[in-house]
Amino acid sequence: MIDLRSDTLTRPTEAMRQAMARAEVGDDVYGEDPTVLALEDRVAELFGHEAALFMPTGSMANVLAVRALVQPGQEVLCEASAHIARAELGAHAAYSGVTMRTWYHPRGQVDLPMVRRMYAPDLGPFFVRTAAVSVECTHNFAGGAVLPIEDLRDLRELATAAGAAVHVDGARIWNAHVATGTPLAEYGAVADVMAVCLSKGLGAPVGSLTIGSADVIAEARVWRKRMGGGMRQVGILAAAGLHALDHHVERLAEDHAHARLLAEACGVDPASVDTNIVVVPRPDAPDFVARAAEAGVRVSMVGPTTVRLVTHLDVTRADAEKAAAALGAL
Amino acid sequence: MIDLRSDTLTRPTEAMRQAMARAEVGDDVYGEDPTVLALEDRVAELFGHEAALFMPTGSMANVLAVRALVQPGQEVLCEASAHIARAELGAHAAYSGVTMRTWYHPRGQVDLPMVRRMYAPDLGPFFVRTAAVSVECTHNFAGGAVLPIEDLRDLRELATAAGAAVHVDGARIWNAHVATGTPLAEYGAVADVMAVCLSKGLGAPVGSLTIGSADVIAEARVWRKRMGGGMRQVGILAAAGLHALDHHVERLAEDHAHARLLAEACGVDPASVDTNIVVVPRPDAPDFVARAAEAGVRVSMVGPTTVRLVTHLDVTRADAEKAAAALGAL
Amino acid sequence: MIDLRSDTLTRPTEAMRQAMARAEVGDDVYGEDPTVLALEDRVAELFGHEAALFMPTGSMANVLAVRALVQPGQEVLCEASAHIARAELGAHAAYSGVTMRTWYHPRGQVDLPMVRRMYAPDLGPFFVRTAAVSVECTHNFAGGAVLPIEDLRDLRELATAAGAAVHVDGARIWNAHVATGTPLAEYGAVADVMAVCLSKGLGAPVGSLTIGSADVIAEARVWRKRMGGGMRQVGILAAAGLHALDHHVERLAEDHAHARLLAEACGVDPASVDTNIVVVPRPDAPDFVARAAEAGVRVSMVGPTTVRLVTHLDVTRADAEKAAAALGAL
Amino acid sequence: MIDLRSDTLTRPTEAMRQAMARAEVGDDVYGEDPTVLALEDRVAELFGHEAALFMPTGSMANVLAVRALVQPGQEVLCEASAHIARAELGAHAAYSGVTMRTWYHPRGQVDLPMVRRMYAPDLGPFFVRTAAVSVECTHNFAGGAVLPIEDLRDLRELATAAGAAVHVDGARIWNAHVATGTPLAEYGAVADVMAVCLSKGLGAPVGSLTIGSADVIAEARVWRKRMGGGMRQVGILAAAGLHALDHHVERLAEDHAHARLLAEACGVDPASVDTNIVVVPRPDAPDFVARAAEAGVRVSMVGPTTVRLVTHLDVTRADAEKAAAALGAL
Repeated sequence: MIDLRSDTLTRPTEAMRQAMARAEVGDDVYGEDPTVLALEDRVAELFGHEAALFMPTGSMANVLAVRALVQPGQEVLCEASAHIARAELGAHAAYSGVTMRTWYHPRGQVDLPMVRRMYAPDLGPFFVRTAAVSVECTHNFAGGAVLPIEDLRDLRELATAAGAAVHVDGARIWNAHVATGTPLAEYGAVADVMAVCLSKGLGAPVGSLTIGSADVIAEARVWRKRMGGGMRQVGILAAAGLHALDHHVERLAEDHAHARLLAEACGVDPASVDTNIVVVPRPDAPDFVARAAEAGVRVSMVGPTTVRLVTHLDVTRADAEKAAAALGAL
Repeated sequence: MIDLRSDTLTRPTEAMRQAMARAEVGDDVYGEDPTVLALEDRVAELFGHEAALFMPTGSMANVLAVRALVQPGQEVLCEASAHIARAELGAHAAYSGVTMRTWYHPRGQVDLPMVRRMYAPDLGPFFVRTAAVSVECTHNFAGGAVLPIEDLRDLRELATAAGAAVHVDGARIWNAHVATGTPLAEYGAVADVMAVCLSKGLGAPVGSLTIGSADVIAEARVWRKRMGGGMRQVGILAAAGLHALDHHVERLAEDHAHARLLAEACGVDPASVDTNIVVVPRPDAPDFVARAAEAGVRVSMVGPTTVRLVTHLDVTRADAEKAAAALGAL
Repeated sequence: MIDLRSDTLTRPTEAMRQAMARAEVGDDVYGEDPTVLALEDRVAELFGHEAALFMPTGSMANVLAVRALVQPGQEVLCEASAHIARAELGAHAAYSGVTMRTWYHPRGQVDLPMVRRMYAPDLGPFFVRTAAVSVECTHNFAGGAVLPIEDLRDLRELATAAGAAVHVDGARIWNAHVATGTPLAEYGAVADVMAVCLSKGLGAPVGSLTIGSADVIAEARVWRKRMGGGMRQVGILAAAGLHALDHHVERLAEDHAHARLLAEACGVDPASVDTNIVVVPRPDAPDFVARAAEAGVRVSMVGPTTVRLVTHLDVTRADAEKAAAALGAL
Repeated sequence: MIDLRSDTLTRPTEAMRQAMARAEVGDDVYGEDPTVLALEDRVAELFGHEAALFMPTGSMANVLAVRALVQPGQEVLCEASAHIARAELGAHAAYSGVTMRTWYHPRGQVDLPMVRRMYAPDLGPFFVRTAAVSVECTHNFAGGAVLPIEDLRDLRELATAAGAAVHVDGARIWNAHVATGTPLAEYGAVADVMAVCLSKGLGAPVGSLTIGSADVIAEARVWRKRMGGGMRQVGILAAAGLHALDHHVERLAEDHAHARLLAEACGVDPASVDTNIVVVPRPDAPDFVARAAEAGVRVSMVGPTTVRLVTHLDVTRADAEKAAAALGAL
């Protein structure tokens, strides 16, 4: 069975398992796990920020990133199918009291004129204030679409002028980096706070980080404890993240090539596939998912008429070719 | 000074004051205030619902209406400048844990294809579910625009088919009713829960109601108490509401005529003014507000480049003409 | 029927109704209602604080008072049957994210050694911090018990030394003032923020106030709007409050005398009745309530084996005597 | 340096590391990690419940356990220094809207008469309802005190009769089990929902479980995702838990012996030390902590005048003797 449901499905490689088994650890709630500290420092530096904080999941990394920028009763603007809007079960409202307004873009892109129109400055104590704008790059539900760095810079400029912050949901920022060659630090430069994930394309079993200023991260540490995300000898997992940074970034190019191959087989223009995700419109989505499974390929449904294929570390070239053949035949 | 900042500014008439002074009252927390009960029954019946609940404000009426339809962690869809999105200080997220996604329409209208596109069915425990769609009629920040009853019926149909509820923010539903002749019960028929307000065009000093099934209202009563909205001998205020229903509904037509008159003076197409609100695009909004005040007319700013004029019970024909002349001269 | 269920049951007197009918009003959301402003100034001054804010209910007054002192995730300490702990439906947790720990005292008093033992200083980012201690005076569920001003001063001293704030739930502070002669300003002096109520012993139909520094009240104004407590021409109600302050404070002594009379009839030591509430232990509470009603006296159950009698403005000397006779006979 | 600050400090043994390195894994968000499933099944069975759910931390395990029993606006009763009250940063209020009342016991025990007195049945829509009583066994801040199973059964009986649920915070239930010989299933039998921890005495690096009925756990799974606790190939960590259950339960007896040895050295009655925690009253707590560190022993401060020593897997007999000598000399 070739599993294309998600790049979260990757299993740690043997080398990664060895890195975990050897990891030096301490109690990270007390800030004493050297492997976690090393990972946090390295990731902060990669993105040009002061500090980073290890999180059990990308959802928590996003929730605490947004919480750092937006007070209860304030709002964040984002695209209507952003992960924070669609796939975090309303946590920003339920746990942080943060409200949202959304613009729509079929490719998950920044719509600058719409952001400008929706942006709500501080108009006094009667109106919701826009405290932050959030963008997701690459954009999961828009098929792994890259947001061009130029657009992110324009947004950064608008936000700065308006007095709002920018959150970058960079769960798959590594894919954007590899697909475009844009240095990670340039993505970091447009964000006040960002979140990145180690357990998607990078192949670590668990782990995400929230990245920002030293002050933001110090406060996020308290909120992480409150949220039940303060783990102990979690250097075991951080070691997998360090290993992934060493060995699994550049190879994402392979996943991207595999995705284009699958797109072609499914009648999706490969030029529209920026990275490792292929969104296939299928009026018969539930049925398609079932028949694909019978043909040995697991895919997922992300909307009533939308199927998603995701390539990743555990999908070899041969797997991709086999899956393309099988899906093409449906 | 002619005050066009809001129709919330109306002061009770002498007759309304007498109605309040004579009101029979009891402890409404115990459900024993006869005037409140009479108002609740009357309003429920007007809209064809089983029950209604008196609220201190339109904000609380909306918050508890949406709370009745949307559980913490679920979402409500609405237009991007809806009152619930822009002017309730994020209460739906901060107090109810309800998240929002928005579509944009320059006239605050239902965009049915976009609602269909955004609607998120229950796709399992990973995705936010759309529990309700909310519409505001008339739409305050879209200049008191009426949402045609046909559009509301189409939305109702879509929502029912999709398994979502419909919330109608009817703070100014009276204006829509008078402007279009659509019976109130037809608006009620498209809503699972609605909120209406007595202290805007109707001229009562305080008071709104949440309207729905007996079950919804019984539960809303508990949430109202929790939220600090369970008042005691509030029949004093309910009496003003009953008086307003008797005397201040049909006269809204005058406010609408006055608004068109003001629109013309400000270079806004009067045909675009459905009811009692005129939204005037002014790049010099803060300055315009200041100069209008010098000319004896108070208007408000509802966006960095947007001025709003609202006609109401305390603005006579003569006032409207005087204001039109003064604003026309700016 | 003589109604002793609660002092919230009082109906406005004719004179109070006239005061309401004549009240000068404006839009209080814009801070323009002169009667509300007059009431807020007067109440703030009575308690020696900078500012006060009109609220629809005592519950909202308490919720926003505590919110001003305690951040989400911090705690307030209070007695186990305090109104904020038992009778506000968990609003402090549900709406403000404020947690509580409680000490128990059969008379609702400050237990200073226990407060000292429970008090949690800021021990770093792992422990809940005690941000405030709350006391209720008089204490409703402890039978209207007065908390001696000396105890409140000791608590004030302890709290100041510890770096915690003090909240006084003064819903019935007027009763304590009349019963003991302690000036209102001396109660005000022990509180960082307090809440007082006009619609209990004072006999206004609706209304409470949160009292504190100008900064606290400015922030509470925003939270009141968010919570749906920002009413419009609410000077109508504030006028009743001003009237009550003029005419209904000193007369509380009569309610206290009536309560002692009732206590005696019910086998409760009158010396234990500080003010206008009598708590009667009755193993047969539901039955007792039913039989009292048959005998023409309505009383309430505040626990499975506890009945409560409350005297108030609408209970005359003759009523009290008649009720005492009826209840004594049960 | 001998580290007695907490039993959370334990580092995985070599054998445990090997178990992690070899663990078979899958995506646990999709319920496909066989090692997690095995651990969940095993733990549920140990305690005689239908199901269990792996959690990143004991805090999240408790928050979601209580959330399963107590709705927003309802209350949980617990002892005043329970972990859920003191050491979870108010998460139950901040994230679940759950309020608390507390009784005090110097040894963290159930005070049944007080529970009976505080218990609030459903008295209608004005009062907070007691939905659950929570007990912690062993009780961390009461010095690892065991709650006798007889007391827990009495509480269970009272709660059942009253219509309330019971939550057992069993972070250190293993210690209670080993100290008393009470089977784990007997602890399970008194709880509607319980939480247990693998990363304290049992020595796993990370991991806790919430345990309850199949329905409760199915719902907790959704809340875990919302809270950011839904991890991917977390069988890596579950493998450590399984290893700990195989090898680190019975040996807790050694930790208990070491704790009594330390107690004696610090002037604490060893008979008062039930398990692996020694609470030492020290008026000079900060100073004592500092001097102990100079003497090669790290201890922690859990109150302004309270020092805590905890024995665990990484403290050998020789370590315990050395620490006893060093602390005895202070």
